[in-house]
Amino acid sequence: MPQSSSLNRRIVLAARPHGEPADSDFRLETGDVPQPGPGQVLLRTVYLSLDPYMRGRMSDAPSYAEPVKVGEPMVGGTVTRVEASGHPDYRPGDWVLAQSGWQDYALSDGTGLLHLGPDPERPSYSLGVLGMPGFTGYMGLLDIGQPKAGETVVVAAASGAVGAVVGQIAKIHGCKVVGIAGGADKCRYAVDELGFDDCLDHKAPDLPGRLARAVPQGIDVYFENVGGAVFDAVLPLLNPRARVPVCGLISAYNATSQPEGPDRLGLLMRTILTKRLKVQGFIIFNEYAHRYGEFRQAMEGLVREGRVKYREDVVEGLENAPRGLIGLLKGENAGKRIVRVGPDERNAL
Amino acid sequence: MPQSSSLNRRIVLAARPHGEPADSDFRLETGDVPQPGPGQVLLRTVYLSLDPYMRGRMSDAPSYAEPVKVGEPMVGGTVTRVEASGHPDYRPGDWVLAQSGWQDYALSDGTGLLHLGPDPERPSYSLGVLGMPGFTGYMGLLDIGQPKAGETVVVAAASGAVGAVVGQIAKIHGCKVVGIAGGADKCRYAVDELGFDDCLDHKAPDLPGRLARAVPQGIDVYFENVGGAVFDAVLPLLNPRARVPVCGLISAYNATSQPEGPDRLGLLMRTILTKRLKVQGFIIFNEYAHRYGEFRQAMEGLVREGRVKYREDVVEGLENAPRGLIGLLKGENAGKRIVRVGPDERNAL
Repeated sequence: MPQSSSLNRRIVLAARPHGEPADSDFRLETGDVPQPGPGQVLLRTVYLSLDPYMRGRMSDAPSYAEPVKVGEPMVGGTVTRVEASGHPDYRPGDWVLAQSGWQDYALSDGTGLLHLGPDPERPSYSLGVLGMPGFTGYMGLLDIGQPKAGETVVVAAASGAVGAVVGQIAKIHGCKVVGIAGGADKCRYAVDELGFDDCLDHKAPDLPGRLARAVPQGIDVYFENVGGAVFDAVLPLLNPRARVPVCGLISAYNATSQPEGPDRLGLLMRTILTKRLKVQGFIIFNEYAHRYGEFRQAMEGLVREGRVKYREDVVEGLENAPRGLIGLLKGENAGKRIVRVGPDERNAL
Repeated sequence: MPQSSSLNRRIVLAARPHGEPADSDFRLETGDVPQPGPGQVLLRTVYLSLDPYMRGRMSDAPSYAEPVKVGEPMVGGTVTRVEASGHPDYRPGDWVLAQSGWQDYALSDGTGLLHLGPDPERPSYSLGVLGMPGFTGYMGLLDIGQPKAGETVVVAAASGAVGAVVGQIAKIHGCKVVGIAGGADKCRYAVDELGFDDCLDHKAPDLPGRLARAVPQGIDVYFENVGGAVFDAVLPLLNPRARVPVCGLISAYNATSQPEGPDRLGLLMRTILTKRLKVQGFIIFNEYAHRYGEFRQAMEGLVREGRVKYREDVVEGLENAPRGLIGLLKGENAGKRIVRVGPDERNAL
């Protein structure tokens, strides 16, 4: 069932997952296409972003954001087109970046919407290199990580939407960059296409030993987006005054219980003290919304000039979004994963 | 055996402690008083500072500073007088802040020495409120902690040399301040003398529950200098964007093994992410030496005006320094612990 002009498909949270999400945690529903009232705009989803943070929203554990309610549509960033409008700032046909979630149609009062201008060349890039993941990598690296030329930067999920930006921006700033990724293909991509100095496959044996040999000068910035065994390998290699921006912990998102001991919480605090580390969490649009314009201008230039490369991994059809997210959490994606929900063109339905 | 003009008493590290240091880990030796050569200055110790970090220097675990070698004098900050000088910048009788360690006499080439001016009113204050501990509390709170009026600041070892400064400076900046200390006497002192809003005895039952009730608005700055059970009680109460300057972990200094599980390292990282915490270690003279003058000028004013209060706990005699440190690590001190090693006056020996 493709997108249509008369039905609104929505994928709702059917149940809170225990551990890895399953198909049965999602449910496809259909309903009427809503009509905009005064001050409202009707958005049609063209692209939906799939991102690791979505796993967190499926749980009701305390976090930085409200969980999705069971029975409600999954949340998500979207690139949309205006279908009808009662809002003075939006006209039918406008391209708009929104947070309209896993559905074909949504109403908005304009809050949080961003115009993408007439005829954007690659509208879906606003979900990736020019959007939340790119902004996360760029600002976390530069503002918290403060990389200096000659320093060593390590980033995991190196071929992912965030990691690829971190590594490429660090290279532009004169750093040595070592990526970590799941599989030889992803590592080759990071080195051959993205220009990383090195990339280690965390699925191969002895990551700690290989990482130690790859960073003979130690690690000055570790951009944390995975946690788990990768962080364990990084921690002893951090240099004094290293910076650790923390934007995600994908390895732990499906965890159902705390791992067995010994309890290394004190070890981490002691390492923070003796190495004078800065470990800082951030949620990009909470901490840095006021700098999005600055980022976007800089990154558009870098992408246009080919200095930052970007790859998308497109899942076809809203009905395949659940499988797309489940696979993303396992690292099956090759590049930024998005869902093609409907056609670019208006009146194609 | 008191200080004399003809013998140099030194307390050396006799053995590396396993867990809590014992008397037998120290040894008192005597030798000749050294004579300064050209460019050298001979310093006589008047006061020796005792500080928790000294426990770390007794171990050879990797840390931010070289361990004391077995058979060498213990390190430590000292207030000294120049006895003889072959150095153009120092004259006999000068008061000098030094790092001459647990001994009566030491030679220096001038590196790292600080003139205390003619006739300092309270020379020993340069080991406490005007020295390393005060500087640690002041700069860690203001530069890393960034307290804002109306925010809640929590500090442990509240009556200690660092904690007392943290709490009083936070009050001056309009914060609500809750201390944590070991014993009812220390807590009374923090509230009645230092002006904390509240102070909790960590030796009484249910610290987590009492702390939660004491900070109904949550915690915006936790100044970490103890670790262990206090940190465990603080962690769930930290507000989004809370700051955690880490300058010490006294509760763990005597630990001989990692505590049993579950392993909460991932929990801590997850809390850093979801609450967007900044957790940052610092060693005051490594990170902030260039700002010592600014600190000292500000703090001298605050102490002179009575806006920052300060209490010393004086151990009499170099031979009692080991017991003094052992007791300090157990929290037996009431205020900043220093050792009176010799008389203020010249020619009193």
